[in-house]
Amino acid sequence: MPIGEFELIEKYFSRLGTRRADVVLGVGDDAAILAMPAGKQLVAATDTLVERIHFPAGSSPRSIGHRALAVNLSDLAAMGAQPAWALLALTLPAPDPDWLREFSAGFDALAQLNGVSLVGGDTTSGPLTITVALLGFCDSAYLARSGAAPGDHLFVSGTVGDAAAGLAILESRLSGGSPESRTLLQQRFLFPEARVDLGGRLIGIASAAIDVSDGLTADAEKLARASGCGARIDVSELPLSAALLDCAGPDLAREFAVAGGDDYELCFAVPEQRLSLLADRVPARRWPYRRIGVLNESGQFEYHAGATSYTPARKGFDHFLR
Amino acid sequence: MPIGEFELIEKYFSRLGTRRADVVLGVGDDAAILAMPAGKQLVAATDTLVERIHFPAGSSPRSIGHRALAVNLSDLAAMGAQPAWALLALTLPAPDPDWLREFSAGFDALAQLNGVSLVGGDTTSGPLTITVALLGFCDSAYLARSGAAPGDHLFVSGTVGDAAAGLAILESRLSGGSPESRTLLQQRFLFPEARVDLGGRLIGIASAAIDVSDGLTADAEKLARASGCGARIDVSELPLSAALLDCAGPDLAREFAVAGGDDYELCFAVPEQRLSLLADRVPARRWPYRRIGVLNESGQFEYHAGATSYTPARKGFDHFLR
Repeated sequence: MPIGEFELIEKYFSRLGTRRADVVLGVGDDAAILAMPAGKQLVAATDTLVERIHFPAGSSPRSIGHRALAVNLSDLAAMGAQPAWALLALTLPAPDPDWLREFSAGFDALAQLNGVSLVGGDTTSGPLTITVALLGFCDSAYLARSGAAPGDHLFVSGTVGDAAAGLAILESRLSGGSPESRTLLQQRFLFPEARVDLGGRLIGIASAAIDVSDGLTADAEKLARASGCGARIDVSELPLSAALLDCAGPDLAREFAVAGGDDYELCFAVPEQRLSLLADRVPARRWPYRRIGVLNESGQFEYHAGATSYTPARKGFDHFLR
Repeated sequence: MPIGEFELIEKYFSRLGTRRADVVLGVGDDAAILAMPAGKQLVAATDTLVERIHFPAGSSPRSIGHRALAVNLSDLAAMGAQPAWALLALTLPAPDPDWLREFSAGFDALAQLNGVSLVGGDTTSGPLTITVALLGFCDSAYLARSGAAPGDHLFVSGTVGDAAAGLAILESRLSGGSPESRTLLQQRFLFPEARVDLGGRLIGIASAAIDVSDGLTADAEKLARASGCGARIDVSELPLSAALLDCAGPDLAREFAVAGGDDYELCFAVPEQRLSLLADRVPARRWPYRRIGVLNESGQFEYHAGATSYTPARKGFDHFLR
């Protein structure tokens, strides 16, 4: 028996994520009604995943549900904000119960982990496309892209290049490495972790932040440009995972790290005088990050690998410039 | 020269709608920062339009931009809420400057009219799909679908069936009527007006409301079911426009009115004891609406046309039941 839109929403989407006391009216009406906590500002982001553009056709629906939320969590992480409520707009060719169960399980698990409640959405037929709008809170302080100044040090969290290499493995474009390394990189693409906790801890320390979704150099340049700066970045300092080195070797690993997208790490700037505050309050052994360069007044972007100059073969992903 | 994603957003989407003082940080960062007015609750809705599902391929981009916002304004209208901020997720095959200019002009004009500011979004390549998330405010009181009780009278605003007939004309499935009538019905599909003002005025008067997006009977039944009621609806009371009667004749006009979607009128319930308040505070000569039936305890839906019983051939639109 075919399932209708109403039943589909009721069955798979009426109770996803955390039950929050501030949800006055959730899924099932024309709109959600939400109680804002006093003294907070609202933070709002939206991101879309399209089949064949953001993930290969036939991808694991659990991964798609996870990623649809993760990419938005990452946007809020980059503001230093706390996520709270999500809206899910799901366009899908046909309502396959197995697919829907897995998709909603992937979304639900990550929502639970981050205290997010699904409060509304829309379900329509069409080419597989998922748009999540994520709402959350910040105090008067937040992290923007534009707050950095010349002399600020540039950092990136975690390791970069893993997700792009994982996608290359999924698409049979990368063949090296042990089974364990290959699995780990694929997981980095399929189930990225947004750095929500780190973002919140950087409030009052970082001068600017951006999430690394389009590739490290592309996103670092966006941060620098929004802050009216240039940058000098040492690509030999980019944090590479052992799995990436195992699968790609040192040269190709660096290319993945420089230009590969989908890591959802944070790139952030810290003024010289707050470096000790960063080390004290956000120790890198607990929330891993690494210094990769410095912002400057030049307005130019200069890359080097230790003592050698370096020119990125490509800088990241743009939807309309390939 | 091909346009990149960054330039595209800057050129077409950085300043749409009203400039609002409560937008702390708008388009251009990872998320928007918004100042909530004290004492208000947040209202949030999202709706998607997909090419070939919600509008014909090759539709006027100005209409698509208008409709993408209008369908969400209608959701807020159905809650009695005031719209404020929009997020726009636009997936499009290629960045055609003419298309983008027209699309953003259509969105902008309606946003201006409703005091809405575009505060963020996402632009990706893929099959043409537009998802807007619309945020707004309400006081402690709002209109839900579930507030009605047996005995409440059921109303619908404006006229119904026009948009479905307009789409039929656009798709060459309906051939009658004068050029003026045909144009008017097409405009009702292409540029629907959400009943935001009416929705706000119904607070404290209506016991429940829903917007008519999937077809009058389908949506009236949703309201009744959410309120634990059945309904008896007189289809001879459905408000029909002169243009619809001109193009479709009385019998087909009624079919369009009963089951046609996309009108974005409001269907609402009013308790007997508040009928005079409705007439006083929301006079139908200024905000047109008409009584079409009554809710009851039966849990069943009964249709009649004056003294004759009536069975709807079809009740509305479901994305996954055709």
